[in-house]
Amino acid sequence: MQEKSKEEMEMQEQEHGGDIYSASYRVDYSVSVNPLGTPHSVRHAVMRSAGVLERYPDVKCRDLRRKLSDLLHLPAHWITCGNGAAELIYTVALARRPKKALVICPGFSEYEKALHAAGCGEILYYLCSRENEFRVEEDVLDLITEDVDMMYLCNPGNPTGILIRPELVLRILKRCTEKEVLLAADECFLEMTAHPGEHTLLGHVADNSNLIVLRSFTKTYAMPGVRLGYLVTSNRELIEKIRFSVQPWPVSIPAQMAGEAALDEKDYLEESRVLIVRERRYMRQSFERIGIRCYDSEANFLFFEGPENLLALSAKRGILIRDCRGYRGLGPGYYRVAIRTRRDNEELCGILSNIYRTAGHYLPGSEQ
Amino acid sequence: MQEKSKEEMEMQEQEHGGDIYSASYRVDYSVSVNPLGTPHSVRHAVMRSAGVLERYPDVKCRDLRRKLSDLLHLPAHWITCGNGAAELIYTVALARRPKKALVICPGFSEYEKALHAAGCGEILYYLCSRENEFRVEEDVLDLITEDVDMMYLCNPGNPTGILIRPELVLRILKRCTEKEVLLAADECFLEMTAHPGEHTLLGHVADNSNLIVLRSFTKTYAMPGVRLGYLVTSNRELIEKIRFSVQPWPVSIPAQMAGEAALDEKDYLEESRVLIVRERRYMRQSFERIGIRCYDSEANFLFFEGPENLLALSAKRGILIRDCRGYRGLGPGYYRVAIRTRRDNEELCGILSNIYRTAGHYLPGSEQ
Repeated sequence: MQEKSKEEMEMQEQEHGGDIYSASYRVDYSVSVNPLGTPHSVRHAVMRSAGVLERYPDVKCRDLRRKLSDLLHLPAHWITCGNGAAELIYTVALARRPKKALVICPGFSEYEKALHAAGCGEILYYLCSRENEFRVEEDVLDLITEDVDMMYLCNPGNPTGILIRPELVLRILKRCTEKEVLLAADECFLEMTAHPGEHTLLGHVADNSNLIVLRSFTKTYAMPGVRLGYLVTSNRELIEKIRFSVQPWPVSIPAQMAGEAALDEKDYLEESRVLIVRERRYMRQSFERIGIRCYDSEANFLFFEGPENLLALSAKRGILIRDCRGYRGLGPGYYRVAIRTRRDNEELCGILSNIYRTAGHYLPGSEQ
Repeated sequence: MQEKSKEEMEMQEQEHGGDIYSASYRVDYSVSVNPLGTPHSVRHAVMRSAGVLERYPDVKCRDLRRKLSDLLHLPAHWITCGNGAAELIYTVALARRPKKALVICPGFSEYEKALHAAGCGEILYYLCSRENEFRVEEDVLDLITEDVDMMYLCNPGNPTGILIRPELVLRILKRCTEKEVLLAADECFLEMTAHPGEHTLLGHVADNSNLIVLRSFTKTYAMPGVRLGYLVTSNRELIEKIRFSVQPWPVSIPAQMAGEAALDEKDYLEESRVLIVRERRYMRQSFERIGIRCYDSEANFLFFEGPENLLALSAKRGILIRDCRGYRGLGPGYYRVAIRTRRDNEELCGILSNIYRTAGHYLPGSEQ
């Protein structure tokens, strides 16, 4: 019993998904990467990289940035690659050195940590409420004032998966531009939504020097082991500051080669979007049947409410889900699971169904 | 002609060695990694890592740190791994947030950049002089005062390769401890000197909470493409601050697996030390014969004086050497070359000899 409660404590303390190293699980639903899995071409690229490890990586990531530039139809010198989008979240804060910053809650915990690491003295929180289905609403605009130096805006949100209305995103950008607030738009999950083109701010980078768009290979191409992300901004001064806030070789050769291979993939992204839309529908229907309150995610993961001990109950059945109690603005009883391929999704729904049926109304927070 | 002068300008601007991406060279002597080359086991590890890229890296680098702990006979929780020692140089500065810092010149330019990135307002420079053969002398102690928050000390020095007398290193440590100055001892090249045990400060980490020892896999195991380094300190508070100064996943899976494989190498390090001692002797004798003024490097590279246009003259012959004019405390006419295997070393000496013979006394700075 002693041991179990210790294990539970450790699990409840999980700060990020994907920590399969602390215990062993059959399936890890806590990590939200592309359900199509790592492209073979990416694996081959990493294998090929083994032949050139005696070289330093290209500090400028020239080939990778050229490919990104072609794909995004944006100048290569607007693009900076990093050791995962997580590193870039820190780098942006360091480059900007905000005194006061705004973050959306619940949200990725690294925004706050990055702000603290950069010496930010004051953080404002916009709280998405359960009453509003955890949506970002217009009142966020009121928090964007002259004294705010920067804000992080994740779209779709994490862990909610909820997209902000495009019209509101543009108003946020406009207000940030007016008030000279640096807007770090985190689009790490956007490419896996159904219509990223309708939501991305990439098209506004040219006209808004206070805008940075962050993107991740980790999630989009299911390669978290490699660490690769990039940011796009047209702000020359900021690009220089970013360059001087980080060591010269953040992106390894395996990562650069993996990234190039990923960008050469032809149908991978489109196929994964189709898969995610279909499987999300399947899972939401299954969740509804079980009686789980599920929010309107449009991302490759679902955000839902469940009993406070669901993490432990799932772990007993060999699966790892993401307990979201650690997110600011949430408490116990909120969870995130990745949308995976049908077999895994069936297994997850089966296990959850089993947990709910077995425990019945004894489960605190259960809506059965 | 226009083009050539532009190329020369770019070359003279080289901030770091190893930039083989800006132009093509037959042999790159500007990078100072282990001349034995990347161990096969490391290449295999990176190939194997291709099979598990869909996982997040272990945020705690557990297996790698356990191996380091066994090897160094130090507790695993004193060890922090990073995305190359270069990243850790930045992280240490960020964690300490020094107002005033001390660096040795000439030295690795990233110390200064890391200090600036961390908002350090004042940097003191200890200048090793040509008159003193670029040695760190006792007068460095005078600069270690109460108002200094931290200092970087690279031993052996880079680009000089000169070791600081062990007795002086200990006096520097003692003085840093007395004055509460954080000592970041960069031992990135130490494992390739003949007797690292006589010079390392690892044995003093336990008793000096103001001491951090930095080490590099990049250089020691010739795997710069991978990016992997570590630091050792017994200072719990600092370990926490370091953890919060950096994103959670700085060390990729390829890097963690490569590092573990490197540490499993049995004779690699000892063999490389024997090779480096022998080849350094060969090269110094050859340099003397050519008439090149060479300093007392005990590292895997040589630091020497040459004509101001030696970089361009070498490039014309297809080889890249390190022009050290950009180092603070140096000017034009100083160079660093890696010690490689005999065939490469012979080629380098042959080319330099040819350059000197051809140009004769027309070479400015030549000591022929």
